[in-house]
Amino acid sequence: MTVRSEPAQHAGMRASNLALVLGEVARTGPVSRARVAAHTGLTKSSVSGLVTDLIAAGLVAESGPAATERGRPATALTLAPGGAAGLGLEINIDYLAAMVTDLSGAPRYHHVVRRDNRDREVDEVVADLVDVARTAARSAASQGLPLAAACVAVPGLAVGGTLVRTPNLGWPRVDLAAAIQDGTGLEVELENEANLAALGEMWFGGHGQNGSALRDFVHVSGEIGIGGGIVIGGEVFRGAHAGAGELGHVVVAPDGPRCACGGHGCLERMAGQQEILARAQVATMADLAHACEAGDQTALDAVTDAGRHLGVALASVLTLLDPAAIVLGGAFATLAPWLSAPTSASIGHHTGATEPPPLLVSGLGSDAAVRGAAGTVVGRVIADPAAYLAQRPASRVGPP
Amino acid sequence: MTVRSEPAQHAGMRASNLALVLGEVARTGPVSRARVAAHTGLTKSSVSGLVTDLIAAGLVAESGPAATERGRPATALTLAPGGAAGLGLEINIDYLAAMVTDLSGAPRYHHVVRRDNRDREVDEVVADLVDVARTAARSAASQGLPLAAACVAVPGLAVGGTLVRTPNLGWPRVDLAAAIQDGTGLEVELENEANLAALGEMWFGGHGQNGSALRDFVHVSGEIGIGGGIVIGGEVFRGAHAGAGELGHVVVAPDGPRCACGGHGCLERMAGQQEILARAQVATMADLAHACEAGDQTALDAVTDAGRHLGVALASVLTLLDPAAIVLGGAFATLAPWLSAPTSASIGHHTGATEPPPLLVSGLGSDAAVRGAAGTVVGRVIADPAAYLAQRPASRVGPP
Repeated sequence: MTVRSEPAQHAGMRASNLALVLGEVARTGPVSRARVAAHTGLTKSSVSGLVTDLIAAGLVAESGPAATERGRPATALTLAPGGAAGLGLEINIDYLAAMVTDLSGAPRYHHVVRRDNRDREVDEVVADLVDVARTAARSAASQGLPLAAACVAVPGLAVGGTLVRTPNLGWPRVDLAAAIQDGTGLEVELENEANLAALGEMWFGGHGQNGSALRDFVHVSGEIGIGGGIVIGGEVFRGAHAGAGELGHVVVAPDGPRCACGGHGCLERMAGQQEILARAQVATMADLAHACEAGDQTALDAVTDAGRHLGVALASVLTLLDPAAIVLGGAFATLAPWLSAPTSASIGHHTGATEPPPLLVSGLGSDAAVRGAAGTVVGRVIADPAAYLAQRPASRVGPP
Repeated sequence: MTVRSEPAQHAGMRASNLALVLGEVARTGPVSRARVAAHTGLTKSSVSGLVTDLIAAGLVAESGPAATERGRPATALTLAPGGAAGLGLEINIDYLAAMVTDLSGAPRYHHVVRRDNRDREVDEVVADLVDVARTAARSAASQGLPLAAACVAVPGLAVGGTLVRTPNLGWPRVDLAAAIQDGTGLEVELENEANLAALGEMWFGGHGQNGSALRDFVHVSGEIGIGGGIVIGGEVFRGAHAGAGELGHVVVAPDGPRCACGGHGCLERMAGQQEILARAQVATMADLAHACEAGDQTALDAVTDAGRHLGVALASVLTLLDPAAIVLGGAFATLAPWLSAPTSASIGHHTGATEPPPLLVSGLGSDAAVRGAAGTVVGRVIADPAAYLAQRPASRVGPP
């Protein structure tokens, strides 16, 4: 708390006001200029000038008439459907993915390449991801969508543009951001896939109540690895060294076998995909879901056992973090019809809670991370349109 | 981010400026008026006026000469040693405690009453705590220390002034704040003892580096119950329903016995004091420490086993929260010479981390919570001296 206000810098004030207006249009559009003025506290003439700039920049569009206080028709403002777009990429253990979302977060392109990346050379996988990114960028260009930047969901820990740790791929350090930047001309950032999946779930999962998003929850993504994304007050919680949320390595079997991480009895070692598939005696997660649908007892037992272990880990999560909800995502969302009940039972057994917080199921499944990645890019444009305007990306296509 | 600044309200501005000046004196004193002005950005004449008010209120005192930029002697300002003081109280399973700290956080009175509260009537224990509080208040008065308020560390969950859940005491709801307020005339707040112990550790534990406190850590308090206090960015993390940090109920033995909380295989059930004492075949924690010192193998085995379970829980804490450090507090601090090594070994076994964050030992031990409680009170005075001045407490003693 301070009472001194910095002298208002003209450029800084314009940047802040552009963000204020664009944010209001994003939250409440279609909306009239008068209502934007009323909600932001800016004058109508300021709003008009700022809106003119945002329209010229392709970020805001005029649509049909909006409701007004006095019943007079006014032109409504919305986010421009052809405005800045975000490129989300994902590199995971057994697939690569790309998604383009427009400024409203709506998917405009989505492509998944399924191929196990564990037995491949790093350079080969990175080259494939660059190809996937270029194909997505071409699709965006053909739709007149100017890409603002790219964000890559990675199965491990990134520091800046470098992927430094990938427990399930076992890669050396990779300058992944530079490779994709070279291939696409876009600014690139990296982020852990479990964190992005949690953000994707918060923004697009539709699990909020009364129109507001979930803001305190833990998202569980069950891919080859088991990831956790902790969202506190609407923000991803990263911990002191960006390593927080590693749900897959919570201890669920203290006397259990060694895990790839070097620990023992980790959730991922006891209930990861490999373990479930081996116990169910099937080859793929699709096979597993079919077997469960068909009532195959071996498959059902394998999923039940995974749920029991998952419940132990989630009991500890609830005890330590007290979230408002847990969301089962990734492949666990696909398995939810058979996984949810034993997981809930195990949570109840291990916490004794009569009313534990809800165990929700993601509607985005394995797409949550790449969607969160693309959403991160457009979220930054909405939060700071002036920065976007100052650095028009190389691949920008469409009206100035 | 907004560019509109509210019209500066005079009273609000004075309150903010008083806090700005008092905070600066607290952080950097002894300090001259000129340096306070330079650090806060306020004018020298504003600072002089505010300091005059703070001295009149008994919150700031003038001491010897302070160093100045130009070498001219100037009067140095410090927190007044007789300024507002805080009363910390603690109600725990087997003791009651009271502490008075002055404005600098230095203890001026400390009293602990050891008695098992589990077999006693609630009213009786509350009456005893009121007596303890009144005795502490009399001591404060006799030292000329005006108490600003009281804060009570409770072994459970409080909502407002009501103690709503006490797993190890099994009490019904108790209007604890009202009882103490009636007995002392002080404003009273309640807070979980594990959270206050973590704050006490952060403020007074001396574990920070380069003069700054630990700000991201987990404090483990091993009293009859095992509590955890999670500090993130210098703030206690409470979760969505104020239940976060319940380290004692992290699952460390999935097939383990039922715990008092209703769950199964909780840390507290496997490594709580009762369990350790039973295995060590001794009656008290003091006996246990003596037995360990004497090299009694049964006692050492009991502590080693507790460390193994504690390490399982802390492995999951590290995995989920990625703190910068873990601090062993409460009775675990007393046992640290025998507990730390097996705990660290278990953490290593279950995380595979070659360099886990440091496992520190609290120098405050079981006093951390009551010290954190008293510190909470004086911290509020320093953060908002105007509110303190507006509501001079009934028991205020000393110069106006």
